Amino acid sequence: MDPAFLAEVRHILDDARVSTGESVRALHARDQSSHAACLPDLVVWPQTTDEVSALVACAARFRVPVVGWGAGSSLEGNPIPLAGGMVIDFTYMNRILALHAADFQVVVQPGLLYKDMNRTLARHGLFFAPDPGANASIGGMIANNAAGTRTVKYGATRDNVLALEVVLADGSVVHTGSRSVKQSAGYDLTHLFIGSEGTLGLITAATLKLAPLPEQFSAAIASFPTTTDAANAVYAIMGSGIVPAALELLDASAMRYFLLNTPLDVPIAPTLLMEFHGATEAAIASELALVRELCADMGATTFVSGVGRDERDRIWQGRHHLFHAMVQTHPSQPYLITDVAVPISHYPELAAFIAELLDTMALDGALFGHAGDGNAHTVVFAPSDDAETLARLQHFNDQVVEKALALEGTCTGEHGVGIGKQKYLLREYDEATLTLMALLKRTLDPHNILNPGKVIPSSFLL
Amino acid sequence: MDPAFLAEVRHILDDARVSTGESVRALHARDQSSHAACLPDLVVWPQTTDEVSALVACAARFRVPVVGWGAGSSLEGNPIPLAGGMVIDFTYMNRILALHAADFQVVVQPGLLYKDMNRTLARHGLFFAPDPGANASIGGMIANNAAGTRTVKYGATRDNVLALEVVLADGSVVHTGSRSVKQSAGYDLTHLFIGSEGTLGLITAATLKLAPLPEQFSAAIASFPTTTDAANAVYAIMGSGIVPAALELLDASAMRYFLLNTPLDVPIAPTLLMEFHGATEAAIASELALVRELCADMGATTFVSGVGRDERDRIWQGRHHLFHAMVQTHPSQPYLITDVAVPISHYPELAAFIAELLDTMALDGALFGHAGDGNAHTVVFAPSDDAETLARLQHFNDQVVEKALALEGTCTGEHGVGIGKQKYLLREYDEATLTLMALLKRTLDPHNILNPGKVIPSSFLL
Repeated sequence: MDPAFLAEVRHILDDARVSTGESVRALHARDQSSHAACLPDLVVWPQTTDEVSALVACAARFRVPVVGWGAGSSLEGNPIPLAGGMVIDFTYMNRILALHAADFQVVVQPGLLYKDMNRTLARHGLFFAPDPGANASIGGMIANNAAGTRTVKYGATRDNVLALEVVLADGSVVHTGSRSVKQSAGYDLTHLFIGSEGTLGLITAATLKLAPLPEQFSAAIASFPTTTDAANAVYAIMGSGIVPAALELLDASAMRYFLLNTPLDVPIAPTLLMEFHGATEAAIASELALVRELCADMGATTFVSGVGRDERDRIWQGRHHLFHAMVQTHPSQPYLITDVAVPISHYPELAAFIAELLDTMALDGALFGHAGDGNAHTVVFAPSDDAETLARLQHFNDQVVEKALALEGTCTGEHGVGIGKQKYLLREYDEATLTLMALLKRTLDPHNILNPGKVIPSSFLL
Repeated sequence: MDPAFLAEVRHILDDARVSTGESVRALHARDQSSHAACLPDLVVWPQTTDEVSALVACAARFRVPVVGWGAGSSLEGNPIPLAGGMVIDFTYMNRILALHAADFQVVVQPGLLYKDMNRTLARHGLFFAPDPGANASIGGMIANNAAGTRTVKYGATRDNVLALEVVLADGSVVHTGSRSVKQSAGYDLTHLFIGSEGTLGLITAATLKLAPLPEQFSAAIASFPTTTDAANAVYAIMGSGIVPAALELLDASAMRYFLLNTPLDVPIAPTLLMEFHGATEAAIASELALVRELCADMGATTFVSGVGRDERDRIWQGRHHLFHAMVQTHPSQPYLITDVAVPISHYPELAAFIAELLDTMALDGALFGHAGDGNAHTVVFAPSDDAETLARLQHFNDQVVEKALALEGTCTGEHGVGIGKQKYLLREYDEATLTLMALLKRTLDPHNILNPGKVIPSSFLL
């Protein structure tokens, strides 16, 4: 690293907020995926937008890579500093800047953690609906267009951001969108940055759409003989016009892990976890009656509803912990998690395909995911880390993505492209479309300093 | 016009689909706004994406301006061919390409008219929710990010488009988005084109999100002593967590025009027109009871609910016809329509400001609009077309926009920037943000052939 660059950085921030220490760098070298770690050269902790702007302007002059860092909870290597350089850790930019409760809006800094924010908002009867499971940072959720269990009703992060403050690759600061929920004033820059994974700019503030905490809710659990039966029930429920607040599918293997941490009197069988939100008990009761009938039509063996608030909270806590529970029972085994999504009419075919593939490949894995959105996660573990075994994991992922694309779906519903999904983009998009994405990247970041090596395949950036 | 260009166009399309006739050009010279007409040099009617691509590629070689044309129903001069050139009329590209009823999706060509599409979709129990009033084309709705009465519940066009096929300025064709409702696979190109008013590319196909026709609905009408009382009721309703399917405010003047065409037993007074959608009668009844109470708290003098389907249809037809009814009663008088929107907490202040301004300026005008979204339209008429009178209309608009921006709002909620709103963009956005928009325009359309003179102020394109 150029000592002149470091000197300038130390001129922008006091010493306590600049680190080149080995252990600090190691803490910013990998996310929750199995992708290989890469050490940044230094880590900085700005406290203001002006500081971020000055840091990026400085990095631009010295052509130093810049990667934003939130909670490090992403699952596709999104923030791994592949080219070293400077990691900007947003931990100290974690304030709520303004709460507009009457407008169901909040303005926050990117380092604010999702759960911390929702704890504060709950005191005002409000919540930010996208629910990634992990205690992600808001900046990271926006950068990756995170989603989660409640997206089936409330939308993904993409659908719940009104305005952004963004530091561009030259250090200039732009303000996109509006606090007005309606706006047709020029190009939609807000959505250009959402899901761009820090490759087009660094988010330094965000205005989020909130939802009122539901007056009434009800959870329900249905068990099925086969994964395909459960997937057919998902399709039937979504086609009925009912909008669940969550509709999760777990195969028998996922249920085994789930029940380890969340004891419930339900069988180890393919299962739907559901939640319904409404204004009145009566409205929810009539929805539940219809859902019970649809599940029965698809062969449900058990249907439990009317669980109380505590049990419901316990169920969702268990669901959110599921991925980590699986990883923890396979200490130091390499793993891979799929994130494909398809139109709901194709979901039963996708689920059946994955179930059969897990079976024929005799992989140690489990299928789960946000079924109401057509989103399927499968975790598969490698019994060893030899090349052949890892290649089998990769082959599994390839097959699943291939199938999802054949079913008019996507290689990534919510984890983002990061490192692992770049090779699939040219199958998901045609060359002209990917060329346009690359053109945007080159235009907004001509020296390729913003999270280099991510999203756009490097062959498109030459 | 270069005869070589015309010859190439005639090579791409048969003669019947190319016109340089005066009357045809005049039909493509203005929209429904008061902005001055401009004749294009020729009008063409492609039938396929390949033809659009060939036409644009040809125009690019000859540096001929290209403007897309739908129904000509926009309100800000958006499709007026300011620089002449070629208008691409999408009338013959008006097919439904695929209906995915089980996924609540439809794939259509841009020339399909909104009402024609929804008539077909109704047979499948589905509808496209954004409701611009006019029988707009789908391509035009996407290009302008149109919204309307139902946006308060269902979102604007921006929120209801999943994927696009777009012809770029060099004639290349890109495919954005996915049929999967969740996708985090690279940059969100779909939203970049929505609302770009034909200045970044021409939409040749769109995949739309549909909603199921509501099982139950109920309309309600409440009258108030003052516009501010009605606006306060809007704020109270939206703050209650209830999500109306429509929440429109009409001041006394707007009501006078409304009742001319839609006789109803309600007073000529500031009025809220409302609709509620739900799964059960009981759910709607409980919402109505709360709304009635909130309106009473704000001083409502009458509250009529429980109108039948025919009367409800008549009310919304009358509401949609309102703008034209006003224009028709002022034959050949210049007019101007505002389209500001603000956060809902600021809506009462905005409405009060407009009411007072109409009064103090003694303008012949009426306030109405999609109040639930904080969106306010005011039509004002000029008694004559002398410069001084027109300057007063413009001064009125300036004042209203200024107020909306001071209230953290936007100069255009749904009509787009077109010609009339460019001068306000530099007040709505800071210079760096508008510079970024201009950079995108220059990057995607380096020769400025796509709808030149729109959206981005020309000083930013030098």
